This record gives sequence, structure tokens and C-alpha cells, in this order.
Amino acid sequence: MTDPRTITATDLRALAVAALGHAGAQPAHAETTADILIDADLMGVDTHGVRRLVPYTAKLRGGAINPTPNVRVEDRGPVMALVDGDDGLGQVAALCALEAVLSRARASGLAFAAVRNGNHMGALAPYGRRAADAGMMLIIGTNASPAIAPWGARDLVVGNNPLAVAAPRPDGPPFIFDGAMTMAARGKMRKLRDAGQPMPLGWALDADGRPTTDPAAGLAGFIQFMGGHKGSGLALAGDVLAGVLSGGAFLTGVGDVMGSETPQRSSHYMLALDPDRLLGDGVFAQRMTAFAAIIKNATPIDPARPVMLPGEIEGLERERRLADGIPVDAAVLADVERLAGGD
Amino acid sequence: MTDPRTITATDLRALAVAALGHAGAQPAHAETTADILIDADLMGVDTHGVRRLVPYTAKLRGGAINPTPNVRVEDRGPVMALVDGDDGLGQVAALCALEAVLSRARASGLAFAAVRNGNHMGALAPYGRRAADAGMMLIIGTNASPAIAPWGARDLVVGNNPLAVAAPRPDGPPFIFDGAMTMAARGKMRKLRDAGQPMPLGWALDADGRPTTDPAAGLAGFIQFMGGHKGSGLALAGDVLAGVLSGGAFLTGVGDVMGSETPQRSSHYMLALDPDRLLGDGVFAQRMTAFAAIIKNATPIDPARPVMLPGEIEGLERERRLADGIPVDAAVLADVERLAGGD
Repeated sequence: MTDPRTITATDLRALAVAALGHAGAQPAHAETTADILIDADLMGVDTHGVRRLVPYTAKLRGGAINPTPNVRVEDRGPVMALVDGDDGLGQVAALCALEAVLSRARASGLAFAAVRNGNHMGALAPYGRRAADAGMMLIIGTNASPAIAPWGARDLVVGNNPLAVAAPRPDGPPFIFDGAMTMAARGKMRKLRDAGQPMPLGWALDADGRPTTDPAAGLAGFIQFMGGHKGSGLALAGDVLAGVLSGGAFLTGVGDVMGSETPQRSSHYMLALDPDRLLGDGVFAQRMTAFAAIIKNATPIDPARPVMLPGEIEGLERERRLADGIPVDAAVLADVERLAGGD
Repeated sequence: MTDPRTITATDLRALAVAALGHAGAQPAHAETTADILIDADLMGVDTHGVRRLVPYTAKLRGGAINPTPNVRVEDRGPVMALVDGDDGLGQVAALCALEAVLSRARASGLAFAAVRNGNHMGALAPYGRRAADAGMMLIIGTNASPAIAPWGARDLVVGNNPLAVAAPRPDGPPFIFDGAMTMAARGKMRKLRDAGQPMPLGWALDADGRPTTDPAAGLAGFIQFMGGHKGSGLALAGDVLAGVLSGGAFLTGVGDVMGSETPQRSSHYMLALDPDRLLGDGVFAQRMTAFAAIIKNATPIDPARPVMLPGEIEGLERERRLADGIPVDAAVLADVERLAGGD
């Protein structure tokens, strides 16, 4: 990690679009993908921001991401759909599925879609924000490359399958829980490793099953699920909803998120729900305000750090970075500029 | 805790029905409630079994549970419903909502219901098992009495809101993840306290915020969410889906699960999904078998303990206890017998 350089969201987006275009992505797909990546950088989730352009463009050039996918939505009645991402950029299939569930939930109050033959779709929170901005609740998840041992096992056959739950809030940034099932994300461990910093105890065991604070040893060993069997069970449940239910890849069938030669073929799921359809216009918004007030009025442990709702820190950071620019790690930004220049 | 006495499920169910009937419950409601409690005892989840008859009957006698509820299902289009439990036994409203989502998902592939004015509904796994036996996936959750501080706060304003995800499996017990959001359930801590046993470090802090292995000190202090902010965020998301979305009570609005004078008014949510509607008849079952094989063929840490799927230990225990009887803590069974006798 190097010192950050600050760049506006508009300029960073233009670089990302150019980088993806040079690697072969269609213009509309490059823009869609850039939007989701920039949203993560705006929220301060830089593990899922433009840093991902390095593997994405390598995959486009290496044939692991299809530059001209035929993304298909197959309806299963009025409230369910299956989406085939055709190995294109993950954000393209995921946003197609998001549009599918939002439009169907607008009509029926509720809709579900599963996506097969997807790719890394970036952070989940940007999808949740789009749904919340449309007045909808969203439950969304994806499977991920196998990297973790299920409870009681030694083999790395499960992904760190993240889950997000989003809801609109009238008086602040949307409520967005977005988290993977381990104590900490692999991206966070890689960042500490690259920075030469230790990680907290409990995040992972080394290859011999011993506790360690060395992120490199942890990445080469056993990353720990939160709550032991609980995080493990939630990760498996996420893969049943994504991989098994989509008709796509699950568990060890999901490919490498970094490798440039074989498709990742990750699977996703999403459920949209119209709260106004359930409670009547405006009632959910009033109730979310009352809900938020109870949490935000709770006594903080540290008086200097008021209690926040899930997604609030990221939502406020987004507003700040939209105004003041995004501090991007200088080495990452140099990579992005190089890729945008066509290298 | 005392030594267990073994009793058949049939005999234990008859005692539970009698206990609830003596406390004023209608016969059909007593049977419904007994079924869910016995299912938990069969699965080995005895924190949520007939042990709960003590608070349930006290609440019925004290007026906190309505013995003659008018449980209402209000449709919101063909795939959504709101259920009002009218302060009756929690299992009655919850099973009514389960029937509502299962029948609607049979017709449309997908259905959602939220329940307000409910009560403690027992373990979630028995509802998941019923859905899976009907060939359906179920996502189900409830809010709970406020007992935990949200991330960064000192006030106990959030419940340990559990979540379950169930899916049918043709070659074994249903896939059922069922867990609350803390490192360990309060019931488990109470059981250790009553047994005079210590609890593992990390489950809770004492009232002064210090780590402790004393379950009584932990129950009087701060129970810890799994993954820190992650478990906290998931618990809040569960209450948005249950409490905010049902129009019922949430957070500090949920009453005491033990007190006998005021209604608990917990809120629940459930989503049923027909996997065959999405993938075609039998495809999901085949894919679940392949999914299960990958997990079950993983190398176990302890060669004597093969890797299990979520719900498998409980499903196998259920078969064993149906055949051999249920070992019930003798003091708990004495309470149940006393209540069944009309005391």
C-alpha cells in the first residue's frame, strides 16, 4: 500500500470505463461495471473498488470473462426469474437481475431472481443502495471462490459468501447490512499483508491449525467463520440460494476470482420486496425513522463515536467523497491509469 | 439441571397438550404449540422444548398470552400477507403464517408473510422442517426481547434475533441452518448457569465490560454478537424484516419473554420458495445431493466426526429420539407433569 492520491468520482469512473474498454468490454458494460466499482470506492469499501480492474481486465484479455455476453432473463411466472450471465462481467448480469426483481416487485410486491454463469459482481452494498433509492428492500447474496473449510472440516470447499440486506430510510443513508461470513474478508487480510501489518487474533489459523496474527500465514491457512458453525452454516445457506437454486456453479464448482484463464462462474441471488405494498404508502418510512432513532439514541461506548446504523458510515463517506474526491492508494491508481491508457 | 428421564415423544406431547389446556389454551392451539415444542426436544434443542411450558403457562394464566386469539391473515396481493397473532400462543400465529406462505408459494413459486402481535414461537428449525417436507425452501426469522447492545453501544436495545434457512434434501434430513446472532444463545448460558458450569471466553462481557467465563455475570452484562458489527447488523436486519415490516413491535417495543403480565408482542417474517418452480421438477433435489456430497466428503478435522450439513445432527437425533424416546432433564419433566396435572 502506498499513500493515497485524491481523484474525483467522475475522473475515476472515466478511467475505469477506459480500462475496461481497452480490455475488450462493450461500452455499456464498461459503464455499468465502473458505476458499481466507483460506488464501492465512494463508500470507502476500497477492497471492492477500482482495485478490482486489474483482475477484471486480465480476465477479459485472457478469455475468462466474455466481452460480448448474451445475458438472458428467463421468467418463471410473474415473481421469479433465472438470469444467465453468459460469463460476462459480473456487474452486468447482476444489474440485469436487479432490474428484473425491482420491476417485478413493483408489480407484485415481491420478486426473486437467481443468476448463473456470473462473475465477481463487486460489493453488494451498491445494489442495495439502488434498491433502497427505488423504495425497495433487497436481500442479495453471491457465492464466491472456495477458500474456507466448512465447520469440522479441513478442506477449503466453501466461499466466503457475502449477504446484504438493504432498506430505504427517509432520514439518512439507506440501511445496508453487507458482510461476508468470516471474521474478516480475505481482501482485508491481503491489504494488511501488502502493508506489512499484523491482523487481529481469531481471524485465521495458520496451515498447521495454530492461531496467528500474520495475514500471509492466515491466507495460506484456515480463515475462520464468525461464530464457528454459525458462519459456516450461513455461508452454506447462501450457496444453496445462489449456486444450487440458480442452476449454476456452487462450492468447488466456482472458479478462481483472480485467475485469467478460466471463468469464475459465480452464482448470485436477490429478493426485492416493496414495503409500501405491505404496509401502505409511507408507513414503512415512518417506522424506519422510529427504528433508527432507538439505535442512534443508544448510549455509545465511546462518547466521541455515536452509534450508527448498518450502512450509515459508508453512506456518509459516500457523500463526503462525492464532494471532496476519493483518496485512492497511489499504486492502485497508477495501475488504473496504465490500464486506461491501453497497457 | 438434573439427570434426564427418558419419555416417548407421544407421552411428552400429551403432557404438553394437557399443561397448555389447563392454563386455558384452546385444544387446537395446545396441540399446535406442543407439536413445535416436542419437535425441538426431538432435535436435541432442549432450550426450546417443553422447558418453555413454564413461561408459556404462566403467561396464559397471567393474561400475557391471549387464550382465545383471533389470528387474522390479511392478503396483500397473491404473494404477500400480513398476519396478526392477536397476542395468542406464538406457535399458533407462526404456523398460520407458515401455511399462508406455503400455499401461496405452491401457487406462485414465492410468498412472504410478516407476523405482528406474536409471542415466543419456539425454535425456528421445526418450521423449516415442515417447509422442507413440503418440498419448499424457507427463510424465517423473528425478533426477540431486547437483551443485547448494538455495535458501539452500551444499551441493551436489540434482541438476539434468530434466522433459519431450510431446504429439502432427498438423501438425508433437510438442510436447516438455525441460529441466533450472538456467539451463543442466552438459553445455553442459562443452562450452564443452572448447572454451575463455566462458559467459553468470548460469549459475553460482564457488567463492567470485562471478559468473563461466568454465565451469570455474562447474562447480567453484555452478550457478544458473532463477528462484532456483523452479527449486530444481521440482528438489526432481522428486526427490520420482522418488526418494522410487520407493523408490529420492534427493538425495545418487544416485551419480556419470561414475564407473565404483559404480552411479548414479538414479530416474525417468513419467505417460502418453490425450487421446482424455478428449476423444473426434481432438478433442485439432484443438485442438493451433489452439494451435500461435496460437504460430506470433505476431510474431517477429527476422523471420528464426519463433516455434517446444517440440520443433519438435529435430523439424525430426531430419528433416534423418535425410536428410543427423549431424555428430558428430570426437573423440567417434573414441572411439565405438575402443569399437566393442573397445578
